[in-house]
Amino acid sequence: MRDVAIIGTGITKFGELWDTSFRDIFVDAGIRALEDAEVDGSKIDSMYVGNMSAGQFIQQEHVGSLIADHAGLVPTPCTRVEAACASGGLALRQAFISIASGIHDIVVAGGIEKMTDILTGQTTGALATAADQEWEAYVGMTFPGLYALMARRHMHNFGTSKEQMAQVAVKNHKNGSLNPHAQYQKEITVEDVFDSPMVTEPLNLFDCSPISDGGAAVILASAEKAKEYTDTPILISGSGQASGTLSLHDRESLTEIPAGVRAGKSAYDMAGVKSEDIDVAEVHDCFTIAEIMAIEDLGFCRKGKGGKMVEEGQTEPNGDIPINTSGGLKSKGHPVGATGIAQAVEITSQLRGEAGKRQIDGAEIGLTHNIGGSGGTGVVHILERGD
Amino acid sequence: MRDVAIIGTGITKFGELWDTSFRDIFVDAGIRALEDAEVDGSKIDSMYVGNMSAGQFIQQEHVGSLIADHAGLVPTPCTRVEAACASGGLALRQAFISIASGIHDIVVAGGIEKMTDILTGQTTGALATAADQEWEAYVGMTFPGLYALMARRHMHNFGTSKEQMAQVAVKNHKNGSLNPHAQYQKEITVEDVFDSPMVTEPLNLFDCSPISDGGAAVILASAEKAKEYTDTPILISGSGQASGTLSLHDRESLTEIPAGVRAGKSAYDMAGVKSEDIDVAEVHDCFTIAEIMAIEDLGFCRKGKGGKMVEEGQTEPNGDIPINTSGGLKSKGHPVGATGIAQAVEITSQLRGEAGKRQIDGAEIGLTHNIGGSGGTGVVHILERGD
Repeated sequence: MRDVAIIGTGITKFGELWDTSFRDIFVDAGIRALEDAEVDGSKIDSMYVGNMSAGQFIQQEHVGSLIADHAGLVPTPCTRVEAACASGGLALRQAFISIASGIHDIVVAGGIEKMTDILTGQTTGALATAADQEWEAYVGMTFPGLYALMARRHMHNFGTSKEQMAQVAVKNHKNGSLNPHAQYQKEITVEDVFDSPMVTEPLNLFDCSPISDGGAAVILASAEKAKEYTDTPILISGSGQASGTLSLHDRESLTEIPAGVRAGKSAYDMAGVKSEDIDVAEVHDCFTIAEIMAIEDLGFCRKGKGGKMVEEGQTEPNGDIPINTSGGLKSKGHPVGATGIAQAVEITSQLRGEAGKRQIDGAEIGLTHNIGGSGGTGVVHILERGD
Repeated sequence: MRDVAIIGTGITKFGELWDTSFRDIFVDAGIRALEDAEVDGSKIDSMYVGNMSAGQFIQQEHVGSLIADHAGLVPTPCTRVEAACASGGLALRQAFISIASGIHDIVVAGGIEKMTDILTGQTTGALATAADQEWEAYVGMTFPGLYALMARRHMHNFGTSKEQMAQVAVKNHKNGSLNPHAQYQKEITVEDVFDSPMVTEPLNLFDCSPISDGGAAVILASAEKAKEYTDTPILISGSGQASGTLSLHDRESLTEIPAGVRAGKSAYDMAGVKSEDIDVAEVHDCFTIAEIMAIEDLGFCRKGKGGKMVEEGQTEPNGDIPINTSGGLKSKGHPVGATGIAQAVEITSQLRGEAGKRQIDGAEIGLTHNIGGSGGTGVVHILERGD
């Protein structure tokens, strides 16, 4: 296997992009990435695009062809991959594998979702198709409900509090306030979270990530090829993927996501690093409880201590392990297919030392953690400065 | 890159499988493939699944997790890929790349579609989301319409006749009558085609492939690993993929599918073979005109001579280049996500000499040709006896 590096990144504004179509969102992100890498489109050997459900959201399947076409890159191969909210992470992994194999030299890994073009109320239903249709969605279960069950059990087992969950949201909004691409660029307080409408006990509205439009892209190249384009290649030193049961009720525990644990372990092993080596991480905070479980599952603290870790400020930018400097899904936004790629955009920015007001000093090794559904898919990547 | 071989295949009956759910269809195909390869599920490193639109057909996205889960293979990674009717071909290609890279040793490539669980009349609408939503589907264009335009132009440019198109259907039904997995196992005549209802002039109903449920799977291994499991490994010696414009109106010509031409060229080049070296081929006959264009695009005859080639019987089992010995999409059925894998199942069977009444004597090199939409994606693979 050949070494693979990120040589360019691009991301759109996340939010309710009423005036931008699905196809234009992706092209916007892709062009930014090509410009950042200073690579001409004709050099691209292949593209992988993460997208959860353009079929349901905008009545468009076959988005690989659409994107190659609208980007002016026909006949370049373009492959859509889907694993619900982990679609972007999988696109990154497939792009990585295709270069590692030697079949391609320069590849785009992108992600996109346009979620605001369907009727209000149908979005949650469309998202619920990432859960088990026969055992969960059919009987009315939605994602806030699934994560509320996890939150309740986490509170019961470990004494995790609603305050600690709210503090995840407060931290991520503070980080997001410094991110010009974030959907919500304003700070909130614990009281704001408590005062926001109840969605599913114990999750208030501000415990939940929003519905978003957005796209992101990264350009990958073989490590050797990367030298031609950049002095600061960001190596993908570890890539892990795992499946979990699609239904929550089939798991032994509600307080961890085994696919995330397993994907993390695979990625750490491939990279030859441990959790304590990570300087900065983007984790999948689709709900505040998800971030608490993620930092436990990735080994940043012992199981059950995630809430305490947040409370003590250890996950803030000046803490032991800064989490979601981008604002995370909570504040930056969560266009589901784009999220896994957006995480890689942020970590690349941090490792290059280009994160501006969000910069973590001396960040050399970063991690991205992307979860599909309630944990049916987990994808983790380790990124390192390659110079 | 490492050499990769097919070591086992499995396929379900294609048709209207009222009594079998989506998840059971895939597991059925997967178990058959594992049994054929004599591989235990615990040896599987990863899975790739082609599926066009479970989101629209059965309100289920995240089918990678579903399949790993329902097959009892959690935590094995499982990735869904989608390129409309070329989804299966792409799954095969990603599985191939992942083994070639060295990241995996044994991988399942599968494909599945369950198309008969939605209301009659909505199927064509769901399929139309593989066309360009903004320029084609929105204004009422469907796939029979798109291929009818191609047929009309082919007739105009080259004198291709309705009789020649009907003869494709007659040949494929004759082949399908010998295939126990085929949706329609009965012969038809040219008159039957002419007497069938008009769908879109000049395409009668029997010029069109049917709506189908079905699943197929192949087990891939590194060539070295393959030796442990079989004496008749089938090498994947060539793999090509290309994008075309999503909309038909953006192409220079209506009488060829450039993504198919390009994917074929890539596959031939990788395998170091020419069209005249191919002993047997499964091509994408979603409509009878599509088979005529395919045999031209793949170089089995000159552009415009496809109709004549069919008329002369050169594509029959005893002809120069037997095409669609399985019955093709027309007679075997077309569960869109499964089709690309089903093609590989048939060619593997032919190269192993296990195709029974459909066997082409001395077949050593075969080809699969899988097209997404009206040609937005093309995927071609070359398979060879590895012994």
